[in-house]
Amino acid sequence: MNAPIREERDGGEDVRVGIWIVGALGDVATTTVLGAHAIARGLAPPTGLVTARRPFLDLDLAALGPDRCDLVFGGHDVREGSPQQAAWALADAGVVPGRLVEALKDDLAAYGARIRPGVAFGSSDLVQRLQSAAARARAAAGQADALAAILRDLEAFKESEGLERMVVVALASTEPRAEVPAALETADAVLAWLDAPAAPIPSSSLYALAAILAGAPYVNFTPSLGITPAGLQELALRRGVPHMGNDGKTGQTLIRTVLAPMFLARNFKVLSWSGFNILGNRDGEVLDEPAANAAKTEGKDSVLSRILGDQLGTSLTRIDYVPSLQDWKAAWDYIHFEGFLGTRMHLELTWRGADSALAAPLVIDLVRLIDLAARGGRKGPQTGLACFFNTPLGVTEYAFPAQMAMLHAYADELARIPATKV
Amino acid sequence: MNAPIREERDGGEDVRVGIWIVGALGDVATTTVLGAHAIARGLAPPTGLVTARRPFLDLDLAALGPDRCDLVFGGHDVREGSPQQAAWALADAGVVPGRLVEALKDDLAAYGARIRPGVAFGSSDLVQRLQSAAARARAAAGQADALAAILRDLEAFKESEGLERMVVVALASTEPRAEVPAALETADAVLAWLDAPAAPIPSSSLYALAAILAGAPYVNFTPSLGITPAGLQELALRRGVPHMGNDGKTGQTLIRTVLAPMFLARNFKVLSWSGFNILGNRDGEVLDEPAANAAKTEGKDSVLSRILGDQLGTSLTRIDYVPSLQDWKAAWDYIHFEGFLGTRMHLELTWRGADSALAAPLVIDLVRLIDLAARGGRKGPQTGLACFFNTPLGVTEYAFPAQMAMLHAYADELARIPATKV
Amino acid sequence: MNAPIREERDGGEDVRVGIWIVGALGDVATTTVLGAHAIARGLAPPTGLVTARRPFLDLDLAALGPDRCDLVFGGHDVREGSPQQAAWALADAGVVPGRLVEALKDDLAAYGARIRPGVAFGSSDLVQRLQSAAARARAAAGQADALAAILRDLEAFKESEGLERMVVVALASTEPRAEVPAALETADAVLAWLDAPAAPIPSSSLYALAAILAGAPYVNFTPSLGITPAGLQELALRRGVPHMGNDGKTGQTLIRTVLAPMFLARNFKVLSWSGFNILGNRDGEVLDEPAANAAKTEGKDSVLSRILGDQLGTSLTRIDYVPSLQDWKAAWDYIHFEGFLGTRMHLELTWRGADSALAAPLVIDLVRLIDLAARGGRKGPQTGLACFFNTPLGVTEYAFPAQMAMLHAYADELARIPATKV
Amino acid sequence: MNAPIREERDGGEDVRVGIWIVGALGDVATTTVLGAHAIARGLAPPTGLVTARRPFLDLDLAALGPDRCDLVFGGHDVREGSPQQAAWALADAGVVPGRLVEALKDDLAAYGARIRPGVAFGSSDLVQRLQSAAARARAAAGQADALAAILRDLEAFKESEGLERMVVVALASTEPRAEVPAALETADAVLAWLDAPAAPIPSSSLYALAAILAGAPYVNFTPSLGITPAGLQELALRRGVPHMGNDGKTGQTLIRTVLAPMFLARNFKVLSWSGFNILGNRDGEVLDEPAANAAKTEGKDSVLSRILGDQLGTSLTRIDYVPSLQDWKAAWDYIHFEGFLGTRMHLELTWRGADSALAAPLVIDLVRLIDLAARGGRKGPQTGLACFFNTPLGVTEYAFPAQMAMLHAYADELARIPATKV
Repeated sequence: MNAPIREERDGGEDVRVGIWIVGALGDVATTTVLGAHAIARGLAPPTGLVTARRPFLDLDLAALGPDRCDLVFGGHDVREGSPQQAAWALADAGVVPGRLVEALKDDLAAYGARIRPGVAFGSSDLVQRLQSAAARARAAAGQADALAAILRDLEAFKESEGLERMVVVALASTEPRAEVPAALETADAVLAWLDAPAAPIPSSSLYALAAILAGAPYVNFTPSLGITPAGLQELALRRGVPHMGNDGKTGQTLIRTVLAPMFLARNFKVLSWSGFNILGNRDGEVLDEPAANAAKTEGKDSVLSRILGDQLGTSLTRIDYVPSLQDWKAAWDYIHFEGFLGTRMHLELTWRGADSALAAPLVIDLVRLIDLAARGGRKGPQTGLACFFNTPLGVTEYAFPAQMAMLHAYADELARIPATKV
Repeated sequence: MNAPIREERDGGEDVRVGIWIVGALGDVATTTVLGAHAIARGLAPPTGLVTARRPFLDLDLAALGPDRCDLVFGGHDVREGSPQQAAWALADAGVVPGRLVEALKDDLAAYGARIRPGVAFGSSDLVQRLQSAAARARAAAGQADALAAILRDLEAFKESEGLERMVVVALASTEPRAEVPAALETADAVLAWLDAPAAPIPSSSLYALAAILAGAPYVNFTPSLGITPAGLQELALRRGVPHMGNDGKTGQTLIRTVLAPMFLARNFKVLSWSGFNILGNRDGEVLDEPAANAAKTEGKDSVLSRILGDQLGTSLTRIDYVPSLQDWKAAWDYIHFEGFLGTRMHLELTWRGADSALAAPLVIDLVRLIDLAARGGRKGPQTGLACFFNTPLGVTEYAFPAQMAMLHAYADELARIPATKV
Repeated sequence: MNAPIREERDGGEDVRVGIWIVGALGDVATTTVLGAHAIARGLAPPTGLVTARRPFLDLDLAALGPDRCDLVFGGHDVREGSPQQAAWALADAGVVPGRLVEALKDDLAAYGARIRPGVAFGSSDLVQRLQSAAARARAAAGQADALAAILRDLEAFKESEGLERMVVVALASTEPRAEVPAALETADAVLAWLDAPAAPIPSSSLYALAAILAGAPYVNFTPSLGITPAGLQELALRRGVPHMGNDGKTGQTLIRTVLAPMFLARNFKVLSWSGFNILGNRDGEVLDEPAANAAKTEGKDSVLSRILGDQLGTSLTRIDYVPSLQDWKAAWDYIHFEGFLGTRMHLELTWRGADSALAAPLVIDLVRLIDLAARGGRKGPQTGLACFFNTPLGVTEYAFPAQMAMLHAYADELARIPATKV
Repeated sequence: MNAPIREERDGGEDVRVGIWIVGALGDVATTTVLGAHAIARGLAPPTGLVTARRPFLDLDLAALGPDRCDLVFGGHDVREGSPQQAAWALADAGVVPGRLVEALKDDLAAYGARIRPGVAFGSSDLVQRLQSAAARARAAAGQADALAAILRDLEAFKESEGLERMVVVALASTEPRAEVPAALETADAVLAWLDAPAAPIPSSSLYALAAILAGAPYVNFTPSLGITPAGLQELALRRGVPHMGNDGKTGQTLIRTVLAPMFLARNFKVLSWSGFNILGNRDGEVLDEPAANAAKTEGKDSVLSRILGDQLGTSLTRIDYVPSLQDWKAAWDYIHFEGFLGTRMHLELTWRGADSALAAPLVIDLVRLIDLAARGGRKGPQTGLACFFNTPLGVTEYAFPAQMAMLHAYADELARIPATKV
């Protein structure tokens, strides 16, 4: 069995940062944990990690390298299963190398032992059906008990692993689009609900609330509600908790926010921008339900109008479930635009990528950056992280190049946080 | 017949800025002149013009609008032909609307009357074959006489049109790749050559030299040598002439410089970037000759390595002549890249655009901006204009977003030039 | 004004074949009529016409050529409007040349004068809204009166134009998917309904019934119900009327039925075949309504499973309305397939074509072929014409190459029909 | 170690058919041998094998199935190396599953033991450089000795493996385009050359000659000269040897011969058909040399003009070497065509496939079919196999659907050959 990585560290004090993943058995979670351990053990280069490049290399981030690793992973999931199973399925689909799954089986098993039953309130029908008996039992006990259980799990994680700090990151399947519950409209309403939880709140927000109460920074990599409601954000500010979301920008939206500014810069008129996505993993299956699909496509569509304003005619986004693609997604964008003297031209893009391989490094980037931000006393929405999200909280800038400039400015700020280690 | 546009101006003094086009009967030149008149007469919106957007709207640029037009066009061409013929051919290919060609026939005819025989030294075989008798006669008289003739044409243009200022812009067909002649290596060598022109220099540089001697700002929208040689640039500085080039960034390279920075930002490894272009206009025909083709593709290829550095594996660019496409070009880019844990993904783009409709508005932008720069006393390479070129002179920044930031900074400087009109 | 074409004929007796178009002001109808007249007057070559190639050139089809034209067009439409307007809109969209619209304005006007108010029973909401007052009045009178009016229109067309034969062709917008009415299940039920029309039948079937009663061959180029119900087909057989449908095979389905047999021949396993269509004409607008969309996409999807059988995993087809494309449609097909030793590969297609320019020549082919078939005494579904349809009536063969062999065999049969002219 | 498969056969007499591969260590050869053993041992289904479908299942072909395998592989190669190494490289590139390489290592080793040094006369520079010492020694001895050595190798293969029949199949890298040597112009010239070999002949033809002299059916899966010269074909007829070539139809040309007939059937005018291929295996590397590239692209281009005749404007084909793609190839076809009333439309295809996985099953199909043909006494070019080749010998039909009809007719003939087993 692999020796724990922290033993390998020499000199200085141990720092242990716990990363608690909601949706711990999903493809993105599995790839994240597998990849972090592969990098930590020197079995893979940090390709795809933004924080593995300058200027981020100079920040005092939780260590993740061949010599040293400060990260420990655990999490919640509503399903049965093991990270090894999930990892082998990804290897079969050609997303991760089988040799890594083999080499890191002990690390995956250790991670599996830290996964606790999650809860699915307001989730899609598919997620409801997939619940384990333990998850059903927790949900049946009601939301107050569920919240208490989540907090106990976080506390136990911290103690058993000797963690100094924790980050909670949401990677669970997209929830159906829902109205913001009245109980989440103000911080006081949230506190009142804690005393007497009446109307249910979606799981994604329940977890966000747990993170706030536990004082852990929170990242919402999904399009679900999470910490979005004003009451939760207000409470996070009061408690000094930094957070950011929503919906990791991994594929089509990334390309859109890279390309759309060019049309603006060159004063082209975008007559229509039509995008079609097909993917085959569980995320795709969940998105086969119209309400979840609407939650996802709305964000994708709005980036275009936010960047292009009235230089955009119409836009269209569709996501369809095509099982044969497994974790791969393919996307087609057809951009019809008008140039000089009304000449009509078009640009087409096809993108084929592995969903989890695109998402996982960003998850690692985000937890490392927000952990440092928390240590530096930052709180509320970390808008400097906008470039990582399809619909960044509290941000009106959607163009990727401008968001990258924001990230570099943010890095400059984080660089001023005093180091904890010599 | 259309009344000259300057008559329509009311108030203030007339400002007349002459735009002298080398390659005056080409598709880009024709579209440029047609489009400028269409906008000047209110027959077309300024779609595609960067200078028609903020912050450039606020600059004291030569007027081009429904009410007022300061631009007058003339030029050289080695071929026989009329702008009307060229414009109808573009209309038949669907590049410009026939109604504009019809409505602006008088303006095109007036422009045609200002076109003088050009000279083709060191040009491709195709260009050599296409020369008119007048062009052949000029070339036969040798380079000293040719240069004198060009300078006389510029002087005559200035006088007959009552011009206050002039800009020379190179839009002629790409020359075969050539070594820099020794006579162009220093300003003194250039001056010595003027006294005793021994070894020939390429036409594109002869025109650049003429512009310098005439004190006119010079823009090289082609990949030909032009003002690139150190001696010409030095002489331009001495004479206080601003200039910029090379090779207008209209299509595939534009997209490449927009997309490549994303791969860098996300720390992807670009394994290979392969690009294929097909086009059917005279530019394409000229590029069917290997030496001209090499001159063009080299620039396209190098932008990728300049942006991606060692995150680029291999790159490949091909341009082929497919007559049926006429002025349209189609391009395919296949980007093979590696992400997290070595996962291999790809992005494909297809672009279909009308070459001349993409180029013409940039030509108008460039002549207006460099004219203002000259009026403000700027000289030498105008690096702030880098975003308009595939291989910008004196610039190491190839990423389009960064080049746009440079352009905005440049606009801020130009904004400080005092206005000439009330 | 253009002289009528039939005057130009020399020798032999006049043959006049009336083509009655349901949906006479639509884009396909307009392009059909414009194109037929352009060919008849020698203004355009017959590119796109299958019947302009061997062996069809040798058949005794109604004449359509520079010297002679036997076709006369008329039709029904529920909208106001003129063919000239419709044609200019198509010219603006780059689908037909403006010079043809100008040159053939008299022919278009003459056609316009032969258009009568149509009826829209069971049509989409959009079609309902677009109805003219005359169309509303006809519909308000009930289906029995509407049928009588249609029959009177056909009779009047025949008399006023001196027609020897007639063909009815359905080109109207797709109707929402509907159950087959009980009244159309047997020929006797149809006859009973004629005596006492109780429950309504869709317009498309009402027109088909009118064609049968008028003894005119009937072609359904749309996915609407038309003559599909068993009772109508039975009645057509009794009355000796030939017919064929449904849904002209113009774009994506054509390509699919060309490509899918290759996967079968090479024993590849098609894991998934996903197709996305965007188009911007009225057809696209009608298909924006879910019920009409379902009627259309079902046919497109089923061809794949019919050709590939259990070598097909899943398939998916979407049609979306993107107004900027006008009459143009763009389509993306993503074919994911498995080859030797389980290797997974893919093929992608993008198709960009003008819907009406693809459809119109096939309409001309069909009316000429079915007219000859009727003259030769053929009745019932003309399965030899399967290659022209997405969902050919009475045919189990969906592979295009096999359907082309059927068409050639059909041509051999038609070649045996004695000529009427010397 | 795996027991030899023939031991598993029960009843009847053993039939052993030897397949002698020229280019035995190449990717296609390796995949062919690996795949045949995988199918023979029941480890993989016969996906991609044409002969695994009806009506070919009913032919008395050499057995290849879970219960029984009549095929034994050996061959020549100019390089050092082992099939296992080659197979693992293919597994790393995702072309074949690693588990098969592991499971079949003994079969691969046995195959490796049957590989003898090849000779490279007239080969590309790359192939020359890659030669093993043994290959160099054979070549240095001259062509007469080389031919004798090849014949001895074939004889030894037959004896040591107890073969009843043999097939020679050419899978070596493409040779540079060469003129047909005078010595190969007639059978008598060939025989004279055998007596006194003066001017050298290309290796591919030397191997073909060896096959003829050994009485073994010969398949040329490459674009090299092989048996193409008239003298070799004449000699094959005299000696009663069946053969077929050239250049296996695996990718872009397959698609072209499937699609092009549609443009003809619908009477579209193909204005231009432009195709670009990129691939990264040794074949691609060899094709990086202009002469080899010309040999390959010429065939790809000519199929279009042969199918479309004067309905084709221009065509263009390029193949480029992009190492990162390894055994994968990507291709883009841009088809610009004209339809009704001159409307210009286009169709684009992108194909991404594993070269060897596309080729290998066809190699197995071909050797099984030509072996049966030989047993049935057929000789000369087997034109019924045209559908497997880019430039089929002695065939003017290039359309894939028509070629498939030819193959089915050929299968009917082969079905009449009496079975050898009960």
